[in-house]
Amino acid sequence: MEGRATASTPAALPYYVAFSQLLGLTLVAMTGAWLGLYRGGIAWESDLQFNVHPLCMAIGLIFLQGDALLVYRVFRNEAKRTTKVLHGLLHVFALIIALVGLVAVFDYHRKKGYADLYSLHSWCGILVFVLYFVQWLVGFSFFLFPGASFSLRSRYRASHVFFGATIFLLSVGTALLGLKEALLFKLGAKYSLFEPEGVLANVLGLLLACFGGVVLYILTRPDWKRPSQAEEQALSMDFKTLTEGDSPSSQ
Amino acid sequence: MEGRATASTPAALPYYVAFSQLLGLTLVAMTGAWLGLYRGGIAWESDLQFNVHPLCMAIGLIFLQGDALLVYRVFRNEAKRTTKVLHGLLHVFALIIALVGLVAVFDYHRKKGYADLYSLHSWCGILVFVLYFVQWLVGFSFFLFPGASFSLRSRYRASHVFFGATIFLLSVGTALLGLKEALLFKLGAKYSLFEPEGVLANVLGLLLACFGGVVLYILTRPDWKRPSQAEEQALSMDFKTLTEGDSPSSQ
Repeated sequence: MEGRATASTPAALPYYVAFSQLLGLTLVAMTGAWLGLYRGGIAWESDLQFNVHPLCMAIGLIFLQGDALLVYRVFRNEAKRTTKVLHGLLHVFALIIALVGLVAVFDYHRKKGYADLYSLHSWCGILVFVLYFVQWLVGFSFFLFPGASFSLRSRYRASHVFFGATIFLLSVGTALLGLKEALLFKLGAKYSLFEPEGVLANVLGLLLACFGGVVLYILTRPDWKRPSQAEEQALSMDFKTLTEGDSPSSQ
Repeated sequence: MEGRATASTPAALPYYVAFSQLLGLTLVAMTGAWLGLYRGGIAWESDLQFNVHPLCMAIGLIFLQGDALLVYRVFRNEAKRTTKVLHGLLHVFALIIALVGLVAVFDYHRKKGYADLYSLHSWCGILVFVLYFVQWLVGFSFFLFPGASFSLRSRYRASHVFFGATIFLLSVGTALLGLKEALLFKLGAKYSLFEPEGVLANVLGLLLACFGGVVLYILTRPDWKRPSQAEEQALSMDFKTLTEGDSPSSQ
C-alpha cells in the first residue's frame, strides 16, 4: 500500500512532459517542412530517397526514443509490466523506423555511387545504431525475458538507465552533425548569407538540443522517478523468486 | 565522524578518472596535432588566428570544464571549501580560455570580412558561452559568496548540477559541430575519399564524445558521489546559520 500512496504525480511533471511533446512534435514537423520546402519532399524510388533518412531518424531515434525513456515517468500508476512492455515496444518502433532510415541512405549512396561511412556523422550514427540494438537486446533479456533473476535485474538497472540516456544524447548529437552536413553540402558559402533554409535548419538544430535537454531533465529529477510498487513486483514479476528461488521463469 | 567513515574512495573510481584524463589529454593533443599537421599551426596575427579558436575551446570548454565537474568526485576527503574553490577556479580558467577562443574567431572574421553567427555551431556556441557564464555567476552567488542561506543552497544544488552537466554536454555537441564545419569547409567532396585529415578529425570527434560519456558516467554514478561531511558543513560553511539564523554571511 505504501507504493500506491507515493504514486501520485508530481505537480510540475505533466507540464514538463507536455513541453517535451510539443518540442518533439515540432521538431518532427519542422524536419518534414524542411524536406518538403527545400529538398523536394520524400520518395523511395528517386533522388528524394535520401530525404527518407532524416525524417525516419527524427521520428525514430529522436522523438520515439525520447518518449520511450519517459514512459516510466508518465505511467506512474499503471502495472509495472504494462509500462515495461510499452517501453520495449516504443524502442522496437524506433529501431524499425531507424532501420528504414539507415537502409534509405545506404541504398541512395549505392545508386549514386557515393562512398559510405567516411564522415563523423556516419561513424557516430553506426555507433548509435549498434549500441541501441545491443541495449535493446540486453534490456529484453534482463527485464522482459523470464529468465533473469531479481538481483541480476537490480544490478543491471543502473547501467541500463545510464546507457539508455547516453545513447539518446549521442543520437541527438549525431542528428545535429547530420543536419549540419546536409546544410553545408548544399548551401556551402551561401550558408553565411542567412539563407532561409539555413536559418530554418539552425532553429531545427536548437529544437533538437532542447528536446534532448528537457527529456534529460525529466529523466534525472530524483523526485520524479517512478515510485517502486512493492506489491506489484512481488505479485507479477518476482513471484517465482519468492516461492521457488532466484529465477522468475514464468511470466 | 560518520561522514569521514564513508569518505573512502570507491575501488573503480580512480581507474575511470584516469581513463577520463587520458581521453581528455589525448583529445587536446590531437586537436593540436590536427591544427599543426593540416592547418599550418597557430598564431594570433595572421590567417592562423582562426586556429586559436578550436584549441582554446578544446582546452577550456571541453577538458577544463569536464575536469571542473569531476572535482567533487576526485577530492572526496579534502575540506568542502577547498574543493569548492578549486571547482570555481577551474571553471574560471575554462571561461577565460574560452573567451580568448571566442575573441580569436570574431577577430579573424572581422579581418577577413566574414559574416558572424550564421551557423548552427555559432548559435550553439553563443548559447553555451552565455549559459556557462550565467551558471558561474549564479553558482558563485549561491555557493561561494557568503550571503546565501543553507536552505537556499540545498534547493539550488540539484539545478546547479543538472545545468552544469547539460552545459558540458552542449559544449561537446557544439565542438563536434565546429569540427564538422571546419572539415567540410576545407575538404568538401574530398572528405569522402578518406583523406588523412578527415579520418584524424573523425577520431577526434569520437574522442570528444567518449570524454563526454566518461565524465557523465563518473558524475552520475550514485555511489561515487562525494559523501556529505556533516561536521565540515557545520564548522566552515554554515556555522552562522546555526548560531545566528538562516544567513551565513561571514566566511
